[in-house]
Amino acid sequence: MRIYLDYAATTPTHPLVLKAMLPWFTDGFGNPSSIHSFGQEAKGAIEEAREKVAGLIRAKSEEIVFTGSGTEADNFAIKGVAYAKEHKGKHIITTAIEHHAVIEPCKFLEKRGFKVTYLPVDKDGLVDPGEVKKAITDETILISVMHANNEIGTIEPIEEIARITNDREICFHTDAVQTVGHLPVDVDELKVDLVSISAHKLYGPKGIGALYIRKGTRIVPFMHGGEQEHGQRASTQNVPGIVGFGKACELAQQEMGQEKDRLETLRDKLINGILDRIDHVRLNGHPTQRLPNNVNISLEFVEGESMLLNLDLVGIAASTGSACSSSVLEASHVLLALGLPHESAHSSLRLTLGQETTGKDIDYVLEKLPQIVKKLRAMSPLYKPGKK
Amino acid sequence: MRIYLDYAATTPTHPLVLKAMLPWFTDGFGNPSSIHSFGQEAKGAIEEAREKVAGLIRAKSEEIVFTGSGTEADNFAIKGVAYAKEHKGKHIITTAIEHHAVIEPCKFLEKRGFKVTYLPVDKDGLVDPGEVKKAITDETILISVMHANNEIGTIEPIEEIARITNDREICFHTDAVQTVGHLPVDVDELKVDLVSISAHKLYGPKGIGALYIRKGTRIVPFMHGGEQEHGQRASTQNVPGIVGFGKACELAQQEMGQEKDRLETLRDKLINGILDRIDHVRLNGHPTQRLPNNVNISLEFVEGESMLLNLDLVGIAASTGSACSSSVLEASHVLLALGLPHESAHSSLRLTLGQETTGKDIDYVLEKLPQIVKKLRAMSPLYKPGKK
Repeated sequence: MRIYLDYAATTPTHPLVLKAMLPWFTDGFGNPSSIHSFGQEAKGAIEEAREKVAGLIRAKSEEIVFTGSGTEADNFAIKGVAYAKEHKGKHIITTAIEHHAVIEPCKFLEKRGFKVTYLPVDKDGLVDPGEVKKAITDETILISVMHANNEIGTIEPIEEIARITNDREICFHTDAVQTVGHLPVDVDELKVDLVSISAHKLYGPKGIGALYIRKGTRIVPFMHGGEQEHGQRASTQNVPGIVGFGKACELAQQEMGQEKDRLETLRDKLINGILDRIDHVRLNGHPTQRLPNNVNISLEFVEGESMLLNLDLVGIAASTGSACSSSVLEASHVLLALGLPHESAHSSLRLTLGQETTGKDIDYVLEKLPQIVKKLRAMSPLYKPGKK
Repeated sequence: MRIYLDYAATTPTHPLVLKAMLPWFTDGFGNPSSIHSFGQEAKGAIEEAREKVAGLIRAKSEEIVFTGSGTEADNFAIKGVAYAKEHKGKHIITTAIEHHAVIEPCKFLEKRGFKVTYLPVDKDGLVDPGEVKKAITDETILISVMHANNEIGTIEPIEEIARITNDREICFHTDAVQTVGHLPVDVDELKVDLVSISAHKLYGPKGIGALYIRKGTRIVPFMHGGEQEHGQRASTQNVPGIVGFGKACELAQQEMGQEKDRLETLRDKLINGILDRIDHVRLNGHPTQRLPNNVNISLEFVEGESMLLNLDLVGIAASTGSACSSSVLEASHVLLALGLPHESAHSSLRLTLGQETTGKDIDYVLEKLPQIVKKLRAMSPLYKPGKK
């Protein structure tokens, strides 16, 4: 028995995605910048993929710039706007629960003379649009708020926040790595200027991402060099990766609606099953405004890492916090931002569902998890059975 | 008939490389940062690949940081050292014939208060180590000289240049994208601190590269975010790409010696054949100190783009200048740096050989190229047959 419940960390490449990629490794291997036929075939393939990626978020294909990852898209967005608009001001607004790929570029810019406001969130992880409004100064050039949080699954009120910024000359970026391909994302409805996407979170390959850049948005390249991607991102394009990304977006567009409903049902079964079977447990993140596949709980008197290892031993792959920091033994900055004490943050468990998750898998988790928690709590001198 | 002679722009992925990559898309798809078994298997695979990449350049595996491309490795090296050492000085030395992936990051830094010296080269494209020495000031923090030029194939005297910098606290970077996997590269013999490598130039996949960072070298990350690659490069690692890169390095190590000799023979046959059959032709780059697979010629009274299109029509894929800028109709900055007039720079042709190139291919080119040149020159009012 081997059950993967860490789809927020990464997804398997869909077999049809891999199939679409294969010809571009060995036969159609040309460099898209070359003007000969090998190059032009590759160029055709990436332009077709660009249309599919654009189509999924209802953008124009010329507004999509391929990057090497979601992290690169975030770096590009944050640093690119900062450098393009620094003559207007040096203030950036973001939130305390952003992915490290947003927070760390902000910290880098702070060392280089920029000011960054990290907005708090409420106990469910929601950003208050009113707080965004209050934080804006004459110096503000960029606001970056994630579409949905990767750890706790809370979906942020992006439209409302965008409405605040749209009548000013402030650029609005959203890291939509967890939502694109899983929830409908329409760049015009969301009224965003920049959107980060990652292929491997939506059954595409690792090593490829994209930044949506609304036409007219001033941004300095992050990757300097050749004139690829209309001069916006240097590097020989990763043709198989881009083709796979395009295919993954095409499949997502077809399957997203039905899959969302299926996952929400399984998710709620898992949440309710855990709350029923285990005491001293708390659901982290917003109860309803959350990603269809996200379950994040704090299990008091249990140490997160021990729980993970015990789950792994019975074949269940799960996570505490985000995969990106899971080799680091720090409490999640997201859970701390919700106001959780360190102990609760350290006792959190994230289970994220995906295409291959079945009802049987959920049953298995609901059988094994309570046993593991019971075993671990039996070792804790502090634990007393009781209220849920 | 379809003959690919643009191996310097990109190489096909070797079938054994692709075979090694395949399991890591669908089965071993875990995120290497995850502590569960899916993650740990992926982590094992990338560490094995890291050893192979390190082995090829005789580095320690912990000195290899995977990036999304050679361009990223160059951006990381140049900007990373600049930001790490700016308190010591803000002067960088490089050459006029570097790849855009080095020149453009330098130009970016120039806009942000750094000073850059672009050293000239001689008529064969060689950098004079004495000129490097003369350019060094108390402010110099970084020297970046490519190992071999991607357009004209000239191999630079890296060891001699390194010797000049090694007794000072100046960091020495070399872009070895064209040499690693093709020529022996030993980081200790070359005495370099930073080396950029790209997988797709050595029969690995596109979208993956590496930066060798000598232990103790101070460098600021370029890609900010998660703690991957020992905190030196954020982003979920591209597991299949990294595995493929490792396999490509392993194969290169086995085949490099023999392949180098084979290619040099074919290269010289092509060069001599062209010089014999066509008049008003000039070999660009160093006559002997050049890449085993590189032929670069200027064919007077012929426009480079027309020549490429005509070659493409008879199935020969070639290049003018570098692929990265070939969709831009600018004369090559490398050829201009050799002292060539604009006309000669515009009439250049690069033919780069590789694993699938045969003697028959060379014969075919030697049959077709003179016919095409003759046809195009017949249309030129300036051309008069005569001296070679």
